[in-house]
Amino acid sequence: MTVVNALTAELGEAIVLAGDRIPEKSRSDQSLSGKHLPLAVIRPTTVQQVATALRICNAHGQAVVPQGGMTGLAGGANPRSGDVVISLDRLAGIEDIDAAAGTMTAFAGTVLEVAQKAAEEAGFLLPIDLGARGSCQIGGNLSTNAGGIRVITHGVTRDNVLGLEAVLADGTVISSLNRMQKNNTGYDLKQLFIGSEGTLGIITRAVLKLKPLPDGRATALCGLNRFEDVLALLHEARKGLSGLSAFELMWEAYFRFSREGEGLSFFEADYPFTVIIEQSGGSDEAFEAFLGEMFEKELISDALIAQSEKDRERFWKVREGATFDSLPRLINFDVSLPIGVLDQFATEVTASLEQEFPGIHVSVFGHVADSNIHLCASAGEIDEATEHRIDTVVYEHVRQYQGSISAEHGIGTLKRDYLPYSRSAEELDLMRRIKAALDPNGIMNPGKVLPVA
Amino acid sequence: MTVVNALTAELGEAIVLAGDRIPEKSRSDQSLSGKHLPLAVIRPTTVQQVATALRICNAHGQAVVPQGGMTGLAGGANPRSGDVVISLDRLAGIEDIDAAAGTMTAFAGTVLEVAQKAAEEAGFLLPIDLGARGSCQIGGNLSTNAGGIRVITHGVTRDNVLGLEAVLADGTVISSLNRMQKNNTGYDLKQLFIGSEGTLGIITRAVLKLKPLPDGRATALCGLNRFEDVLALLHEARKGLSGLSAFELMWEAYFRFSREGEGLSFFEADYPFTVIIEQSGGSDEAFEAFLGEMFEKELISDALIAQSEKDRERFWKVREGATFDSLPRLINFDVSLPIGVLDQFATEVTASLEQEFPGIHVSVFGHVADSNIHLCASAGEIDEATEHRIDTVVYEHVRQYQGSISAEHGIGTLKRDYLPYSRSAEELDLMRRIKAALDPNGIMNPGKVLPVA
Ligand SMILES: Cc1cc2nc3c(=O)[nH]c(=O)nc-3n(C[C@H](O)[C@H](O)[C@H](O)COP(=O)(O)OP(=O)(O)OC[C@H]3O[C@@H](n4cnc5c(N)ncnc54)[C@H](O)[C@@H]3O)c2cc1C
Ligand SMILES: Cc1cc2nc3c(=O)[nH]c(=O)nc-3n(C[C@H](O)[C@H](O)[C@H](O)COP(=O)(O)OP(=O)(O)OC[C@H]3O[C@@H](n4cnc5c(N)ncnc54)[C@H](O)[C@@H]3O)c2cc1C
Repeated sequence: MTVVNALTAELGEAIVLAGDRIPEKSRSDQSLSGKHLPLAVIRPTTVQQVATALRICNAHGQAVVPQGGMTGLAGGANPRSGDVVISLDRLAGIEDIDAAAGTMTAFAGTVLEVAQKAAEEAGFLLPIDLGARGSCQIGGNLSTNAGGIRVITHGVTRDNVLGLEAVLADGTVISSLNRMQKNNTGYDLKQLFIGSEGTLGIITRAVLKLKPLPDGRATALCGLNRFEDVLALLHEARKGLSGLSAFELMWEAYFRFSREGEGLSFFEADYPFTVIIEQSGGSDEAFEAFLGEMFEKELISDALIAQSEKDRERFWKVREGATFDSLPRLINFDVSLPIGVLDQFATEVTASLEQEFPGIHVSVFGHVADSNIHLCASAGEIDEATEHRIDTVVYEHVRQYQGSISAEHGIGTLKRDYLPYSRSAEELDLMRRIKAALDPNGIMNPGKVLPVA
Repeated sequence: MTVVNALTAELGEAIVLAGDRIPEKSRSDQSLSGKHLPLAVIRPTTVQQVATALRICNAHGQAVVPQGGMTGLAGGANPRSGDVVISLDRLAGIEDIDAAAGTMTAFAGTVLEVAQKAAEEAGFLLPIDLGARGSCQIGGNLSTNAGGIRVITHGVTRDNVLGLEAVLADGTVISSLNRMQKNNTGYDLKQLFIGSEGTLGIITRAVLKLKPLPDGRATALCGLNRFEDVLALLHEARKGLSGLSAFELMWEAYFRFSREGEGLSFFEADYPFTVIIEQSGGSDEAFEAFLGEMFEKELISDALIAQSEKDRERFWKVREGATFDSLPRLINFDVSLPIGVLDQFATEVTASLEQEFPGIHVSVFGHVADSNIHLCASAGEIDEATEHRIDTVVYEHVRQYQGSISAEHGIGTLKRDYLPYSRSAEELDLMRRIKAALDPNGIMNPGKVLPVA
């Protein structure tokens, strides 16, 4: 019996889609790099069905690709032809909100925004948040250890997970749905599944931390002249503001390009460094007093405080940089480096790129508090080899500074062959040992994350 | 050649202590449950020597026990006779403090207090803190994922580790000394070594997060009548205080016994629940205003605000409960439960114990914000079988509520056979698979954490 027949026999045609019934969207995540339709798409509605599907695939040595909301940017959810997809779309819903403990238990397929709204209705903040909130799923967020815009206050996804349930390649259900803040009873197994991009098992449920809903928000746009002032301002803000909730840095080229694209202007002249600084939950007076102090200390040269929601939106519009989408074949790098060398890195990598690709557009912005910057590069209508060469130039610089080639988005297929730029041979070997221990037949998302040995 | 001869030949007699030179203190950690002297004690001064020692032991199938500051409370660092100890005492020192990034890199043997002072001198707070700070080591803190008194603000040890270096059983050095806040490049290997009590490898170095030094501290002792008011007060404090840094609950029996033992009195009558609430870094006025509000909301019935360092010390003295040391054969349980059931658990377990052991002393206090309580039990000069029976009664209740038999202190040998009360057969099996993948000869701290299959 073929694997598809075996799956259909046990799970039924409503759950196993094959042939013509395979949806086009199962081809690729948001990196748009996926080329193949899978052999079949399984849409389980219960944890037990996930276990059954994996047990059958494992027995057949059939490769499996987990798919969440398909908003990933690294190709991690893309099937090869012949792979079987397990989509979590229908394993969705909030199981429980425990207001006393401040926890939410949700199925993996729950769309992030749905979970956020449920938390809010119960009077809580779900700390995980990113631009893709309307489509990405809790399971995908955990599997990629997503970052996003609340990391400065609440940490990455990993920091907000108390427990989870996952199904191993052989169909074993590992239920570690811990709800306690502290639990030192043997190995913390959930850590294995967080950030491993579906290569060690399928996450089916999670227990997430909830936080009190903050009220009040104050936002300022600040112009600074020197990178060391940016770092000093960050240090002071961490100390002096009661709820620092954003600290986003734009280098001059980024700020100018984006500002002009949006038709906006703020200061008389653009500064080498522009920072959006935001506070949640404190008083407006304290925020103003803090900025005044920074002005006196000569850390900031100019500052605008948002007087309205509209002002705030104008600041963030520049940071979000929709204008960049107009650039041909834009490459958006997601790297992190020791915070002290961020500016040096930006300067050096820009110089290298401009030297090798005259006329290239390079600009930089970042979640500097998280030591994470995004570098936008566009060299016109280039071919794949040139794109690869641009990647290599950037990642060579990352390697030099012992940085990370992926701060947030993960490795997937797109950065897989660059993984040795950030991890040692011993580390890669240990990852392979872990992989073999959990998935001896190698059926879980093969070809993703780990470079061929 | 015997393993001790092989070790001495490669490492020298200054590093390998055998025979009469084995120190008495290598017998037991602070649980005082260790009975045996080891076969030899190795005191490496470099990472390379740790690797050499492990490579030789692995080749000889020689069991190895890592020892840090020996302040553990679970017997995790205790050798069996015939085991070889690797002590981290001499692999100590701060390698680097990066003020821009807010990180410290330290060798595993560095005493916690030494690391805390170095951070302070550089203008930072090292968030890890516990009573044993003068003796416990960074490596021991990581290996036990220590909790302590700053968890409410800064999380457990795991939350404060950015990177680490560990040596596997076969001598392979895994250097994952990441310094970045965000790094999604394959599996997060450091998580394996944190909290695994020396059963997967020896931690040799760590990169820790540093935080700004808070200034100013305000403390109050509050009397409350109902457990739901305790939870409501906690919720409000999290929301309303800018730097909630302690929220410690004492049940009435604990508070009275400790208070009387210290010869102190506070309120006219003792309340069913007494809470120490502390704020770091905010203003005294805001603290007083907050308490006033809680009073108006009728959450607290009475409150004393510390007017001096001496007042504060008096509050904490009751909480620290030195008086309990006078009780014969005191058992100190360290459990966590879903926060909403803490009081129900305390009531039920007390009733069960009092019924089975008439005259037993039972009292309870806890880091309630972390859902972690400590239960003190003393039934006089009991034998080992009775002690075991008391353990079983308490852990049966923990199991009923799906709680954790160890919130902070770890499993070691003392709680090993109770591990199935908190973890499923599938989880234990997966732990064993991980163990076998990293340590195929089973030389790393055998007999600890994992119950015999
Ligand atoms: C507009 C936009 C903004 C974004 N902003 C951010 C950002 O700020 N920070 C950030 O980190 N990322 C960001 N991303 C990337 C992406 O949204 C995140 O990686 C997200 O967490 C992916 O979730 P998903 O459900 O879409 O997963 P998918 O794309 O479906 O899958 C991602 C990976 O996880 C695996 N996977 C999915 N579900 C499971 C499961 N249940 N069990 C096991 N494996 C599973 C897949 O196999 C794949 O390897 C953004 C993307 C877009 C399009
Ligand atoms: C007065 C007092 C107060 C305490 N308060 C707290 C508290 O508030 N919270 C809390 O969590 N604990 C507390 N403890 C328990 C204890 O201090 C912690 O568990 C501490 O982290 C142990 O550190 P150590 O260096 O003494 O480790 P050890 O006791 O030497 O070892 C502990 C375990 O870790 C392993 N180990 C040690 N070093 C390494 C290494 N470098 N690599 C691999 N494995 C290693 C050992 O094999 C053992 O299994 C307290 C203990 C005392 C005596």
